[in-house]
Amino acid sequence: MLAENTTAVGRNHSVALMPLVDNIFKQSSLTPAQIDRIVVAQGPGSYTGLRIGITTAKTLAYSLDKELVGVSSLAVLAAGVQDVNSVIVPVFDARRGNVFAGGYVWQNGQLVNRISDQHISFAALCRQLPDRQVCFVGADAQRFEAEMKQNLTPGTYRIGGAETLVPRAFNLGQLGRFADPVNVNDFVPNYLRLTQAETQWLAQNPKEKDNNGAYVKKI
Amino acid sequence: MLAENTTAVGRNHSVALMPLVDNIFKQSSLTPAQIDRIVVAQGPGSYTGLRIGITTAKTLAYSLDKELVGVSSLAVLAAGVQDVNSVIVPVFDARRGNVFAGGYVWQNGQLVNRISDQHISFAALCRQLPDRQVCFVGADAQRFEAEMKQNLTPGTYRIGGAETLVPRAFNLGQLGRFADPVNVNDFVPNYLRLTQAETQWLAQNPKEKDNNGAYVKKI
Repeated sequence: MLAENTTAVGRNHSVALMPLVDNIFKQSSLTPAQIDRIVVAQGPGSYTGLRIGITTAKTLAYSLDKELVGVSSLAVLAAGVQDVNSVIVPVFDARRGNVFAGGYVWQNGQLVNRISDQHISFAALCRQLPDRQVCFVGADAQRFEAEMKQNLTPGTYRIGGAETLVPRAFNLGQLGRFADPVNVNDFVPNYLRLTQAETQWLAQNPKEKDNNGAYVKKI
Repeated sequence: MLAENTTAVGRNHSVALMPLVDNIFKQSSLTPAQIDRIVVAQGPGSYTGLRIGITTAKTLAYSLDKELVGVSSLAVLAAGVQDVNSVIVPVFDARRGNVFAGGYVWQNGQLVNRISDQHISFAALCRQLPDRQVCFVGADAQRFEAEMKQNLTPGTYRIGGAETLVPRAFNLGQLGRFADPVNVNDFVPNYLRLTQAETQWLAQNPKEKDNNGAYVKKI
């Protein structure tokens, strides 16, 4: 690792991101031409944050002609826990009792997905968890302590420490280091749920529900 | 955590450090007046790196009238390993078969020093290790694999993963968060060995050896 910058301030992504990238180049004494690939978190996450991150990553990859790799935002959180004996369950609050969550385990030094990333109620998530020690991670995990108590056996779960609250840039890079690159033009965020506009449109056009969500705003 | 920047490029500290500090303030939308304390790695480490880091930290603490806290550089490395079952042994190469090293364990979520930070031959370090699983950490640890094989029982030790190679800024901050502040004026680096100038001077002035190393260059 030559240089790493993690910031947890959830606003002004569009203003802050490029100076941050520029700084990392300066700190590592590398020119953009010298790097091999660009790794970006693909989601789930905030719509605006994902769009800005992915658009920036795609633009850099396209203009510099570099490989682009997308990594699950939840996997980045999970990678902050170095525990080979637990199922690591990264959690983002998705409001109204729902979460974005997945299940990961360490296997021979690799982080492996065991429960797919999904948009799910916390209670339903608990029912999916295997009969094994669970470690919840992420800054939102503590909001679900009451639900954990209600749905899980005491002693079978814990919440990750302070060092695991924020997804770390290093872990993102590490997960994407040897992953297969994507097609830059086709790459899109993995929101894992419909946008509000899509939800509203589907509510107004219920017949389109089986049409597999091809969302076109009819004017 | 609002913002974190870790850089592992071991040169130009004097040029790079203040812009880096400035950037962290910008990213976290904090002014220097709004922070509570400054935490700096006290050593061991490179003479120049320690002097620049500690001088910068002292100057900031003095001019902003903020608390200053020093943390063992080895403890910062150790804190990168989240393993409650091992003695964590951070290692910096000190050349000629010697290391700067210490021994740390996690106890109720706190990192506790068990073997004092010291300048010691790797072989002698191995003899100090308790009869317990050991995890060596730091980018230099791999250089001592042959010595580990020679001095330790197979299966009783391992080397930390890629995420533990570089001391992480977040862990430095976390270790210093609740530690007692020091007196800004009296605070000095903890080199854990004499500088080359001191060694040479002592070689030329052997009678001063028992004088507890009060080094004054006689011109």
